[in-house]
Amino acid sequence: MPDVKRRPCRVALAGFGTVGQSVARLLQQTPEDVDLVAVLNRRVAGKRVDWLDGRVRWTESIDDLLAADVDVFVELIGGRDPAETWMTMALARGISVVTANKQVIAHEGPSLRALAAARGCQLRFEGSVAGGVPVIRAIESGLASDTLTQVAGILNGTCNYILTRMEADGAGFDTALKEAQGLGFAEADPSQDIDGGDARAKLAILALVAFGIQAPAEAIAARSIACVTPLDFQYANRLHCTIRQVARATSAGTPGTLTAAVGPSLVPLTSPLARVQGSENLVTVKGQFGGETSFGGRGAGGDPTAVAVVSDILAIARGARPPSTAPFRRVEHVSAAFATPYYVRFTVSDRPGIIAALAAVFAAHGINIDAILQEPGFPADRRPFVVSLDAAPSEVLETALAEIGALDFHVVPPFAMPVLL
Amino acid sequence: MPDVKRRPCRVALAGFGTVGQSVARLLQQTPEDVDLVAVLNRRVAGKRVDWLDGRVRWTESIDDLLAADVDVFVELIGGRDPAETWMTMALARGISVVTANKQVIAHEGPSLRALAAARGCQLRFEGSVAGGVPVIRAIESGLASDTLTQVAGILNGTCNYILTRMEADGAGFDTALKEAQGLGFAEADPSQDIDGGDARAKLAILALVAFGIQAPAEAIAARSIACVTPLDFQYANRLHCTIRQVARATSAGTPGTLTAAVGPSLVPLTSPLARVQGSENLVTVKGQFGGETSFGGRGAGGDPTAVAVVSDILAIARGARPPSTAPFRRVEHVSAAFATPYYVRFTVSDRPGIIAALAAVFAAHGINIDAILQEPGFPADRRPFVVSLDAAPSEVLETALAEIGALDFHVVPPFAMPVLL
Repeated sequence: MPDVKRRPCRVALAGFGTVGQSVARLLQQTPEDVDLVAVLNRRVAGKRVDWLDGRVRWTESIDDLLAADVDVFVELIGGRDPAETWMTMALARGISVVTANKQVIAHEGPSLRALAAARGCQLRFEGSVAGGVPVIRAIESGLASDTLTQVAGILNGTCNYILTRMEADGAGFDTALKEAQGLGFAEADPSQDIDGGDARAKLAILALVAFGIQAPAEAIAARSIACVTPLDFQYANRLHCTIRQVARATSAGTPGTLTAAVGPSLVPLTSPLARVQGSENLVTVKGQFGGETSFGGRGAGGDPTAVAVVSDILAIARGARPPSTAPFRRVEHVSAAFATPYYVRFTVSDRPGIIAALAAVFAAHGINIDAILQEPGFPADRRPFVVSLDAAPSEVLETALAEIGALDFHVVPPFAMPVLL
Repeated sequence: MPDVKRRPCRVALAGFGTVGQSVARLLQQTPEDVDLVAVLNRRVAGKRVDWLDGRVRWTESIDDLLAADVDVFVELIGGRDPAETWMTMALARGISVVTANKQVIAHEGPSLRALAAARGCQLRFEGSVAGGVPVIRAIESGLASDTLTQVAGILNGTCNYILTRMEADGAGFDTALKEAQGLGFAEADPSQDIDGGDARAKLAILALVAFGIQAPAEAIAARSIACVTPLDFQYANRLHCTIRQVARATSAGTPGTLTAAVGPSLVPLTSPLARVQGSENLVTVKGQFGGETSFGGRGAGGDPTAVAVVSDILAIARGARPPSTAPFRRVEHVSAAFATPYYVRFTVSDRPGIIAALAAVFAAHGINIDAILQEPGFPADRRPFVVSLDAAPSEVLETALAEIGALDFHVVPPFAMPVLL
C-alpha cells in the first residue's frame, strides 16, 4: 500500500535516567517525523537539559504528560508501581505504550496487550529483554511460522560479568561482585541479579512470546550464583565446561505446561553460551523447523536499550500493525523438572566411607555416577570434591541431595548445578 | 487497531524443490488462514504429491499460476531468469512477492520494491540471506533506530563446512569439498560457493538493508577459498586465529560509498566468527548506538529457509506494513580498501636472500612486518613460510605483492589473507 501521509508521531517520555536520556538523544537524530513533546521525571527542575528542543514540556505529573496530545507513551521509570498504572492510563486513552519494564510485562503483558487491542493502540516491549538485541521481534515475526520448543539464554549481564571475571582470573565471587559494582555493572543491592529475579522476569517474557504461555515470574525456580567458587570453574574445566547463569524454558512435554529455571549451570566450552563474555547477552531459540537460532549483543546500558525502545517507537510511527494479540494460556505452576546431567560439589570433613555413603544414596534413587573428581591439596577437615552424575530428573536429584545433606560429614551444604549438554 | 476480518490469504508457489516442499509442509501446519492454492513446477506430473490438499492447482504455466486469484506469489525457482520476470509480472498485478532468491534481490531488489510500493503490494526476501536466521527483519525493524556502520558474516554454509572440516582434521581442500558434495552441502559445480559469488550476492543484500546502498554484487571483490591449505590452519593457529570465508561491508568513510569484500580471512579464535561450525551462518552488525549484535543459525536447507519464507507470508497475511521503501543510493564502484593486518604465505625454492628481498619490498611500501613464521621439515625446493604484516591498506599490499610476485623464487604464487582483529 502507498505511504499514507501522517502528522508527526508525538512521543511522551516518563523517566529521564540513563535509558531515558539515550532515547531522547536517539530520537533527536532520527530523520523520521517523530517528535519528543514531553518528559516526566521526579524533581524535574534538576533533570532539565539544554540539549533538548525548548518546546519539550517538562513535568512531574502523569496527567500533564498524557495531556500533551500524545501518540506514544514511553515508560522508562521501571518497577511495578506506578509504571503499570501509568501504562494502563495511557492505553485506556488509546495512546500506544513502549516500555523496557520487564517486571510489568512479565506480570501484566497479556492484559495490557489486550487493553491495547481493545483501544486500537499498541504495546511494545523489545527493550525489556536483552537490551538492544531484537529478540522479541525475531520470535514474534521472523520465526512466526515455526513452532518453538525451547528458549535459553544469558539474560543478566551482571551475573555474566561476575562469572566471566571469575573464569578469567580465578577471582572470588565477592571480589568479582565488588568490581562489577565499581564499574556500574551491579547495583548496591545486587540480589535481583545474583539470585535470578531479574533473569526469571525476562524468561517469563520470552515464554510469553515464544510459547504463548503466561506464567508468574515468581513461579520460576531460581538459584543464586553466590555459591559459585573459583574451584567450581577448575572442576567445570576438567569436564570441558564453564559456568554461566542460564535461564531456560521449554514447552515440550505436557501441552500447556511450562518447564523453566534460572541458575548457575555448567555449559560445554564449545557451546555458544560459553562464549558470552562480560555483560553481553545471548538468547538461543529452538524451533521444530528452523533448528537453533541465536541472538547476541549488548544486553543492558542506555544506548543499546534505547535502540530497542526507539525501534519500537519507529514501528508505531511507521504504522506497523500491532504484534500478535493471540490469547495466552495462563499457568500458575511452572515445573523445574529438567532431566539433565548434574555437577555436585561436596565439602566434607573427611573420613573413610563418605564416597560409599553418597554412592549408596544415589544408587537407591537410580542416579548413575559419571565421575568423581578430587583435586589434591585441601585439608582433611574441609575437603572439596565433585561428583558428576548422569542425566536424572531434577526432582529425583533433589530428593537424593536432601537425604545426603542430612548426613553428618558436610562442612558446606552440597552445591548442585545442571550440566547443559 | 482491532483485527480486521480477512479472507484467507491465497498463496501460489513457483518451485517445488527442497525449499518449496518445506514451505508447502509448513503452510499446512500453520493455524492461520493461509491457503496454498497453486504450485508451479517444470514437469509437474512428476512433482505432484499426495500430501497436499487435492484442491491445489498444479501447473507449468506462470499465467495459469497467477490467474488463481492469488494474494502472495512465492518464488523459489532461483536464478535470475525467468524468476525476475515472474516477480515483475506478479507485482505489476498487485500480487505480493516472497522470495529467497539472492541473485534477483541483489540486482533488482530496489526496483522490485519500488514496483511493489507503486502497486500497493509487498516484496519480502528474508530467506535470501542466512536461511532461517531473521537478520533482514532484525536490521530493517529491530535495529531501525540505529545507524549501522558495519555488517560482517559467514554467509556461505558450503565454505564454512569445508573450512571447519579442514580445521578439525587437517583435511585437504579437495577432500573436504568432496565430502561436502557427498553430504549434499556442495553442488557438483561448487564455484559459486567456493569463489565467493554466493556470499557476495548476500552481502550486497545486507548492504542494501543495512546502509541503503545498492551496489552490483559483481563489483564486490571476492577471493576463492580453494587456495587455503591445511598448513594455513597451522600457521593461523600460531597467530591465535582460524580461517573462515568472511563477507564484510562498511559504510564508514566517504558518505555514499561502500567498502566490501568476500574471501578467506584469519579470525581470532575468540571471535564469534571462529565459533561458527559446519554449515551454520552468522551475521554481526555494528551500530553507532547499539554496538555489535549477532544473529546465528542454520543458513541453508529446506526447513530453515522455509521458516523465513513462511514468516514473510504470515507478515503479509497479518496485514503487516511493507518494509521501508526509502530510496537507495546506487553505487557502481565498490572499494575493497580495508586497512587490516595481513597474513601472506610464500612457497619458495629456497636460497639465501629471499627474506631480505621480501622485506625490502614491504619496507619500500611502508608495510611493517609483524612476524615471520616458518615450520621446519619442508624440502628446500618447495618451502613454505608465512609473513604476518601490520595493518596496511589493501591496495598498498596488493602493489607490494605484485612486485614480490614478479621475483623468481616462487613455486606457488604468494597467498594473502586479511586478519580480522
